[in-house]
Amino acid sequence: MKYLRFNYEGNEDLGILINEETVIPFKKIFKENCPKNFTEFIENFHNKYESIITELKDEVKGIPLKNVDLKAPLKEIPRGVICLGKNYKEHVKEVPSTMDLKNGIPEFPIYFFKLVNEPVGPNEVISLHQELTSQLDYEVELGIIIGKEGKDIPPEKAEEYIFGYTIINDVSARNLQTKHVQWFRGKGLNNTCPIGPYLVDKSDIKFPVQLNIQSYVNGELRQNSNTKELIFDINYIISDLSKGTTLKPGDIIATGTPSGVGMGFKPNKFLKAGDVVKCVIEGIGEMSNMVK
Amino acid sequence: MKYLRFNYEGNEDLGILINEETVIPFKKIFKENCPKNFTEFIENFHNKYESIITELKDEVKGIPLKNVDLKAPLKEIPRGVICLGKNYKEHVKEVPSTMDLKNGIPEFPIYFFKLVNEPVGPNEVISLHQELTSQLDYEVELGIIIGKEGKDIPPEKAEEYIFGYTIINDVSARNLQTKHVQWFRGKGLNNTCPIGPYLVDKSDIKFPVQLNIQSYVNGELRQNSNTKELIFDINYIISDLSKGTTLKPGDIIATGTPSGVGMGFKPNKFLKAGDVVKCVIEGIGEMSNMVK
Repeated sequence: MKYLRFNYEGNEDLGILINEETVIPFKKIFKENCPKNFTEFIENFHNKYESIITELKDEVKGIPLKNVDLKAPLKEIPRGVICLGKNYKEHVKEVPSTMDLKNGIPEFPIYFFKLVNEPVGPNEVISLHQELTSQLDYEVELGIIIGKEGKDIPPEKAEEYIFGYTIINDVSARNLQTKHVQWFRGKGLNNTCPIGPYLVDKSDIKFPVQLNIQSYVNGELRQNSNTKELIFDINYIISDLSKGTTLKPGDIIATGTPSGVGMGFKPNKFLKAGDVVKCVIEGIGEMSNMVK
Repeated sequence: MKYLRFNYEGNEDLGILINEETVIPFKKIFKENCPKNFTEFIENFHNKYESIITELKDEVKGIPLKNVDLKAPLKEIPRGVICLGKNYKEHVKEVPSTMDLKNGIPEFPIYFFKLVNEPVGPNEVISLHQELTSQLDYEVELGIIIGKEGKDIPPEKAEEYIFGYTIINDVSARNLQTKHVQWFRGKGLNNTCPIGPYLVDKSDIKFPVQLNIQSYVNGELRQNSNTKELIFDINYIISDLSKGTTLKPGDIIATGTPSGVGMGFKPNKFLKAGDVVKCVIEGIGEMSNMVK
């Protein structure tokens, strides 16, 4: 099942996507039980919403997908996105590093935090921030949505704690990442976190997750890999990150980006005004955003 | 004015501290207008709550401070704490650095993010996390509470965007900071963010802020400085951080820690079970926490 947020005839709602073409609005299927946002939906999925969907999804009249205006599935991400850096080998090779890493490959995951004031939805605009950077870069990533609160999660139970998956474009201002030493500042500018187009229920994706992942800029293929190439896989990440730190429903983990970012090219291929970045992950969908 | 969160006779409330000895519960003074948390209070302070306080604070019967059980003023900090590293010169000298910094002093602020699952209140326990670290360390810091939404804030207008101040102990697992390269992981363990005892209205603190700041472990003075020693001052931080990134009411910025952390001693003086860390900032108060 795929879930989305959308505008239709001036009203915003969450919805379920059926057969890749029909949207069933939450208000129609859940009525007085309607969750007010995806966090509430995710937290109560198994004890409340899943059975209603199974029972009623074929009875509710939907809206054609082509008639709705897609938004980022999560309207707000107050806890931000927990990201991994340098988690694909080919990407590690392409970027300069002042870090003290054996063979350049991290021995342990590199986690950092992406502050998100407002997520950017499909077809919405990435801000260029030209007064702050001339090194704005794209990073397509598989995003994991946590479905259940957990701490000290064993690797073999990690999948139980996942609600589903999405696409994240971890747009980064490279000069700010370097200038401020820690990456927080260069990752948290307004309108630099496209997310979407859908939240995909984990039952739709075979585990362990092996999905083709690509990005394009103005139609030119830039990144092209598969999530099986992750250095630290999803079981490892969830288990490691939850040691001593509670993960909560709705938390998002961006699992790292493959090679082919703008910084990896000689000369660099940073984003310019008018560029369109398209991110694609097999089984999830695709998301395009213009830079402006 | 100082604000606090407390338990009294089994009920939790927010309150106003009068003359350092009497607590006026929000429920008694604001009645049906009672904000449900400090974020709502901060967001609506000037247009709603300030005048009620001025009018009624001498008429409402309070509770003696000694009879209430203090809690962290903010119950939840979903957007975490935005922290500065290496923001006191003497502290920069005491800690090892693999960073490429001229004279060891940062040219630009080093920002990182502290994930806070649940803030630790005054007299509550800091978790030792002995299965993850033998290098747990204390860091007393002046915390700024943002009072008004802003972006691209000029330095000379920074104070307008401040609601007030508090004390933060940025407890850190040094081995995890190093092991994971970026600091996020070593800063975000559960129960490692004591905050309190009060939120102090900015009108109580002369600007620019020059406050003595200390920490003690088991009564031994460890850190002892003044916030006038900040490398990047509050005007600079708020202005710099808000370039291209919106700050929101309730956001917290921890302005960095002075020298005297456990890692700075030879041999190191990391925290052990049973240790009591006391953090003191002039004009705000003091906060003690046992490690367990």
